[in-house]
This record gives sequence, C-alpha cells and structure tokens, in this order.
Amino acid sequence: MDIDLNSDLGESFGAWRMGDDTAMLDVVSSANVACGFHAGDPAGILATLRGAAERGVTVGAHVAYPDLAGFGRRHMDMASSDLRAAVIYQIGALQGLAAAAGTRVRYVKPHGALYNVIAHDERQAQDVIAAICAIDPSLALVVLAGSPLTAWARAAGLRTVAEAFADRGYRADGSLVPRSQPGAVLHDPAAVATRMAQLVREGTVTANDGSTVRIDAESICVHGDSPGAVAMARALRERLTADGVGVRSFMDAEEGVAA
Amino acid sequence: MDIDLNSDLGESFGAWRMGDDTAMLDVVSSANVACGFHAGDPAGILATLRGAAERGVTVGAHVAYPDLAGFGRRHMDMASSDLRAAVIYQIGALQGLAAAAGTRVRYVKPHGALYNVIAHDERQAQDVIAAICAIDPSLALVVLAGSPLTAWARAAGLRTVAEAFADRGYRADGSLVPRSQPGAVLHDPAAVATRMAQLVREGTVTANDGSTVRIDAESICVHGDSPGAVAMARALRERLTADGVGVRSFMDAEEGVAA
Amino acid sequence: MDIDLNSDLGESFGAWRMGDDTAMLDVVSSANVACGFHAGDPAGILATLRGAAERGVTVGAHVAYPDLAGFGRRHMDMASSDLRAAVIYQIGALQGLAAAAGTRVRYVKPHGALYNVIAHDERQAQDVIAAICAIDPSLALVVLAGSPLTAWARAAGLRTVAEAFADRGYRADGSLVPRSQPGAVLHDPAAVATRMAQLVREGTVTANDGSTVRIDAESICVHGDSPGAVAMARALRERLTADGVGVRSFMDAEEGVAA
Amino acid sequence: MDIDLNSDLGESFGAWRMGDDTAMLDVVSSANVACGFHAGDPAGILATLRGAAERGVTVGAHVAYPDLAGFGRRHMDMASSDLRAAVIYQIGALQGLAAAAGTRVRYVKPHGALYNVIAHDERQAQDVIAAICAIDPSLALVVLAGSPLTAWARAAGLRTVAEAFADRGYRADGSLVPRSQPGAVLHDPAAVATRMAQLVREGTVTANDGSTVRIDAESICVHGDSPGAVAMARALRERLTADGVGVRSFMDAEEGVAA
Repeated sequence: MDIDLNSDLGESFGAWRMGDDTAMLDVVSSANVACGFHAGDPAGILATLRGAAERGVTVGAHVAYPDLAGFGRRHMDMASSDLRAAVIYQIGALQGLAAAAGTRVRYVKPHGALYNVIAHDERQAQDVIAAICAIDPSLALVVLAGSPLTAWARAAGLRTVAEAFADRGYRADGSLVPRSQPGAVLHDPAAVATRMAQLVREGTVTANDGSTVRIDAESICVHGDSPGAVAMARALRERLTADGVGVRSFMDAEEGVAA
Repeated sequence: MDIDLNSDLGESFGAWRMGDDTAMLDVVSSANVACGFHAGDPAGILATLRGAAERGVTVGAHVAYPDLAGFGRRHMDMASSDLRAAVIYQIGALQGLAAAAGTRVRYVKPHGALYNVIAHDERQAQDVIAAICAIDPSLALVVLAGSPLTAWARAAGLRTVAEAFADRGYRADGSLVPRSQPGAVLHDPAAVATRMAQLVREGTVTANDGSTVRIDAESICVHGDSPGAVAMARALRERLTADGVGVRSFMDAEEGVAA
Repeated sequence: MDIDLNSDLGESFGAWRMGDDTAMLDVVSSANVACGFHAGDPAGILATLRGAAERGVTVGAHVAYPDLAGFGRRHMDMASSDLRAAVIYQIGALQGLAAAAGTRVRYVKPHGALYNVIAHDERQAQDVIAAICAIDPSLALVVLAGSPLTAWARAAGLRTVAEAFADRGYRADGSLVPRSQPGAVLHDPAAVATRMAQLVREGTVTANDGSTVRIDAESICVHGDSPGAVAMARALRERLTADGVGVRSFMDAEEGVAA
Repeated sequence: MDIDLNSDLGESFGAWRMGDDTAMLDVVSSANVACGFHAGDPAGILATLRGAAERGVTVGAHVAYPDLAGFGRRHMDMASSDLRAAVIYQIGALQGLAAAAGTRVRYVKPHGALYNVIAHDERQAQDVIAAICAIDPSLALVVLAGSPLTAWARAAGLRTVAEAFADRGYRADGSLVPRSQPGAVLHDPAAVATRMAQLVREGTVTANDGSTVRIDAESICVHGDSPGAVAMARALRERLTADGVGVRSFMDAEEGVAA
C-alpha cells in the first residue's frame, strides 16, 4: 500500500528565506515547486530542483497568480488569455530549470487563491486546463479531493490526482473546515499521523461532527514552512512507514516504479 | 545567396504597446522574442509566437536582465548563479509558450545591456553560455560580429551566428560607432539598403572613415519599434529580393530548407 | 460659470509611452497623475508634475491596485491593512515628487478596478477613505456622480467631487451604460461637446433611452490616450470656452481663484 | 556623552519575514526604514513606523536601487533623471506612511549597493544629494565615516552624519576590511561592545594591523537580521549604558532633546 506526500517548496525569494527545502525533500515524494509568480527566484528554484533530482522526488509546477506581494493568496480576475498564457509561461520556465537540474516536471498543482478559485470556478478552471493541454497534456493535475475541477479536467483528458490535507479539519460533506472556524487546523503531530494513517488504510477521515467521511485521495499535502511543520511531516512519514505504507509519487505508482 | 533578417519582437507589456509585430513578421526570417524580464507579458508573447508560427519565422529567446523599468538597458552585476538560472528560466518560459503556439525556440539572442556586456565580459558570457548548454545545447547563440564572445561560445560547443546592424555606422576596426558619436545611426532607408546589399554580396561595409572593412555576418538586425523603422526594414528586404538574395533563417540554411 | 476637466496622466512606464501628457496639460485643469502602482515610473511622473506646475494644472493622486501587468484594471481582494497602506504609500510618493516639481497634491482619484470597486463596496471604500484621512484629510476625493461612495466619504469629513464622463453613455437612472452594451462609448467629438455643454448649463444629460437625467458633477473626465482622444478633449474645451464656461480646477473654484 | 545606534528595519516583504523589528526598536535610537524598492511592503513599513513612533525612535529613509530580487545589493547604472526621481519617490512614500504613523522622516541612509556606490562615485552621489535637496533639504544624510560623500553633501548644504559599523573590521587608513578578507566581520558580542565603547570614548578603533585609527562617527550601525545580531546589538547598548553613554538620535542631540 502506497501514498504520495506532497509539499510546497522553492518558496524563498532573493534574500528572503521560506521553509526548509532540504529537510522536506527527505520527507516528501512530490515537490510542488514555485515558478516565480507568487514566490521563487530562478536560482533558488534551480537549487530546490537539484535537491529533488538527487533524491528522486517527483517535481510539479506550483503555478500561481502573478502576485509576489500577496504571495498568490489574493483573488485576481485575470482575463482568460492572460491566465492561460501565465500558466504556460510558468510551467515552461520550470521545465527549463528542471532540465538543467536533470529532472522534469510531471504535474501541475495550482497555488493559493488560484487553487481555491479553480476548485469551483469553471471559467478559470478551463483556462488552467487549456494551458496544461497546450504545453503538455501528459502532466497530471493535483486537485482538491471532491471538487468539481476533477470532472472538468478529466473531460479534457487530463489525469487528476486528488489530495487530502494532513493538518486540516474536514466537515461531514468532505469539504474542509473553513479557516475562520474552530477545528480548521490541527496542531498535534500524533493526531495528524493517526488520522492520515486511517485515510490511507480505510479511505476515510473523521469529520468535525464525529461522522466518518469518505475521502479518495492519492496524495497528502504536508507543510514545511516552520520547524513545527517539518516535524509534523516527519512524524507522519514515520507513522506511515511503521504501518507498512510506502511513501512514493503517484507518478511512480502509475508507472510501476518500485518504492 | 541567402541572408537572415532578425528583429526584436514581443516587447509590448500589459496595456503598453511597442512596435508592430504583425508588420515585422512579414519582413524578417528570425524573431527575437522577449521573455518577460525586460519586456513582454505571457499573453502578448504567445500572440507574437503564433504569428511567427503561421509565417514560418524562426523563433529565438531574447533573454535579458530582470529590469522592466529599465527595459533591460542598464548594466546589473548579477551573481553567476542568478544570471545562469535567470537565462534558463527565460528560455524555458519561451519554450513553453512556443510549444503552445506550435513552434519552438531555435536560438538565443541576449538583449540590451546583457548583449553588450557579454560581448566582452567573459564571466557573464560564460554564465550565459553555461545556461544555454544546461537547457539545450542545440540552441544557436547570436553574437556581435567580431566579438570575443564568439570564441568562448564555440569552445563550449555552441553554434554562433554573427550579426550586423542594418542602421549602425561601423569603424575601420569593424566595431560599431558609439551612439554618442556622429554617424552612429543611419536614417536613410535607401542608403541602409545599399550598404547591406554590399554586406551580403561582398562581406564588407564602408566604415565611417571611408575604408572598407570586412564583416562576416549570417544575420542582419533590423528594428521595428517605429513606423520609420518598419519602412526601413521593408525597403531592405525589397532591395535584397531585387538583388536575388533570399531572406531566410540561418537555421533553415543550415538544414537545407528551401527559402 | 465654471467646470473642471480632469484626465489620467503620467501613465508611461520606462521605455513604454502612453498618451500625450504635454498636449493634455494644455486642455485640462486637473491632472490625475499615476503613482507607480498601475503605471508611471518616478522620472516620468516627475516630468508630468513639472508640466502641471508650469501650467497651473491642479494635481491629484491616481492611486491604484499594485498591478503593472494588468494596468490596475483587475479586481484584487486586498486586505484592509494592505490597501490602506498602499494608498498612503502612493499618495506620499506623489507628494514627494510634487514638492520637487514645485507643486502639491490636492486630491485623490482612484484608478481602474479600485475606482469601480469602491464606488459600491463599502469595505474597500472605507479603507481608501481611512488612508486619505491618515495622510491628509484636506485632500478631496473624486467620485463617480451618484455613487454611494459620496456619502461614506462625506461622513468621514472628506470633500467629495462628483465627476461625469465626457465620452460615456448614461442610463435613465444616472448610471453608466456598461462597456459590454451598445452606446457605452461615444465617438463623435461634436456630439460629446454638445452633451457636456448641456451638462454644465443644465445639470442634465440625455440618457440612452432618450430621457433626461440629472447629473450633478463638478468635473468632467476626458481621455488623452490616443490622438483621437486628445482631439475630442480639445474640441470639448473649445466648445465650453465658446459658451462662456471657464475651465478651472474645483479646488480653485473653492478657493475663489480667478480662472 | 551620547551616541546614536541605527539599524535597518522594515525589510520584511509580503509573506517573507526579515529581522525582528520589535526587538530592535527597543535597542536603537534611529531606524533606517525600507521604502519598498529593495524591501518592505506598505503595510509592513507602516507597522514598523508605528513601532518607532511609540518608542520615540527617529526615522530615516533607507532608499535603494529598484531591485527586490537582488535586495538592492547589485550595482545598477541608473541614469541621473531616474535615480533622482527614484530617491524622491521613496522618501515621499515613507514621509506619507510616517505621517500616518504619527512620526516623520528625519534623515536618509542609502542602502546596499547604492550606499557603497555613492560613497565614492560622484555622479550618483550628486544625484542622491540633489534628490534630497529637492524634497526636503532639512533631511540629514548618513554617510560612511571618512568617505568623499561627506564633502559633496556638505557643499550642497546637507547635514551629514558619519557612521561606524559595530561588527566590521577597520584597516589602518580608516576604511573597512573588505568582506572577502579575514577579519572583515566580528562575531564576539563582548569584543564588539568593547571596541565601540572605545570609539565613543576616544574616537578611535584598533585596526586589523594593531594600529589605532581615528574614526569620527556620530552613529553606530548595528544589525538585527538574526537572533545573534539582535543579541549583539543589545549587548552593545548595555555596555554603553553601563559606561554612562546615552543612546540617542543624532537629531535629538542637535536639537537639545533630553536623552
């Protein structure tokens, strides 16, 4: 039994550090690498890609709205022509750096506000889908488990990979507890590990009302932007390993690569 | 007998227009397309690439220092790791957009201050060369005819393409008349056409002191950033055609593609 | 009888030109000067401010969302703390350049998407109002005639100046015909001049359904971003002058300065 | 006996943190606050200014080249018109935010590459001086002790404030040991404190060759960009206080404000 662990990396910018990419590359099987629009400068991205290549970590393009000052967390009503081209540009830039690092881009995971918007907004979702199809339709698209985006992407022929969030609370309908409500974010590494072990084993999580909700996920998103987050991710990986669960990329799984 | 005509395109940005790409794509055989660092937004770059693809115009990456406000015309002392990664990032981004437009990037021509610096500064030149080799060593590098860059690039295994400037005065040693001196820029389309016809036919230009100087060039750079510039480029192409000179890409020439 | 004419100026950026500021400064009494967030670089802004100072044209801060690539035309859901500080920053920067040019900032006119949003969205409107009050509550705020923003700004003690648009169609309720509908934009300079003469004389415009609608405006916005726009603005000023209407700033009018 | 302690603050940007402004504002008497060109977003700058206002810390404008990606540490050959306007723009923006925070800008300290360049390059130095004179000639200019900039600024009528660096080694001629050489940076807080106590008491430091060199400084620059740097700054302040040296702004000293 296998599962993928993914995390957002390459998010330093110039003189500013964010996260501990070296530590996280030893924990995850998939690296969502910033493409320079919400975070990441070329040299820093390249260094992260080299680290991923050395460890056999699968690389995805963490595409975003063009908003460094807002870290890609602010909604922007980009025109379709702009959004499509911006997504292609970012994937292409990362492909170039990945080639230089001896690896390649295998999937796309939109970041921040773009991730949230396309989970439900069909116009922008179709723009992102069209962009991926235009540059490389073999790229997978990581989606929020249960979101309408899954069907739109599949209809266009894209492989979709549903993800769950290790440290987020779920509601009985399978949606995330909004950050403005209690129980939105879990802080206890052991509880998170137990929860995700259940997800992998049984395909379910316990919702905030105590009910059991089905979550079909091929990947689990873990954070690495603080020492506590890195420790939580490590604890999760150790628990999964102890349970006999292999941590490996969904792309390896597809291709029958041994963990 | 053939010659390549190249021009800087894709240099609009957001609401700001620059040049008449549609007109110039009917004149040139090679398009140096901006990559977003000195000019060019993704949607505008993509539109220019589509125009190039439709007309069979060869595409090059017009890489630059990261300086929109200065249009890439200001020297920046970038560290090697930053410069290399910045060049790879730009080429990759353009490759992605080119793939979406149904074409591909065949060469690199640095822009503005970067072009001037690497013609003579070996450290930055080697950074640009290393970047090209890291992403795709089959890309040609367009260089100032007679500059030391030629030897550095060839030593690294890159194909170099020397270019002359249609509207610039030359000195007896084959260097350009500096812009601060009289005769630096030629303004008469007929004189420019006659001069370039001689360059193609005889491999020489008349220098500002009246002497004849040898210039080995596979490509001629023409400007398109004003209506007068477009007219001068058209007049040059008409003159070359009338003289029986084919206008076609140096990459086509290499591959034996019919003009 | 007097009216103010205002126009958006200082919108060039680096190597990219926009509009003909010199021509427009001879037409308008108020210059909405870009502050560097949607357009305008410091040297270009300073040149426009010097032109305004020489001609006695009143200066306003044309504040915007931080979005050069989108020219400030895209909605951004900025947090209140960010929006307030961004507006203060822009006004302060323009005040500094205005001081160097021998003039000063007298009013604020939000640009593009920010203008449209705060006409109706109270949260962002209050942020802009709070920013103005924090840096200089003697600054006037130019508002869309008839919008709820007027009351919010007045409640905070700001002077508001309602504006009409010279080349836009109006609906029977006094709102603008949306750009997506026929009649949104008027193109005939003579018709525009006649229409605005009526506005000044009678305080009304003829709506697109033929009805007469009351518009209380102290200022008329004219465009200068194309040769046709400049010509239309000139024709309007000539018509007003022929009708005996003085063109002068609403700030001069308040202070009893002779036209 | 008094001395000023200054530090670079307000250098966070969007989601990226840098330094501990709250801690440093309890140590220093002068805050060099970033203006958004090398670091600092408007909301973060405003928060730092509020902290300075609450503690009576004097505020200076830490102006820089427009280079977020390079943190203002890369030389840029800006044209005079661009450099002058960029400096005015930054000072103005900070003045606006300072007014909103209940304080005001009292001095200018250029940052990074601009600081190094104008210490010796007269053309760019005169541009910075002209900018300060244009917006507010009562602003002081913080300069490297012993640099030619001092005379140029004084000739223009500006007050100059010479500064020493707490943690840098000095050569026998009073210049700093270059960062590429051993002894360039001191790491022992006690040694730094002893050294600066001597500077304040006797106007000298011990150079790296053991000689005693005269340094006339009204201010000492301390860093706050790491926990170790904050601790070193605190240790210096404690030592000065123990020696009976008052830590207060050079502007307060000038105006006879009690420490």
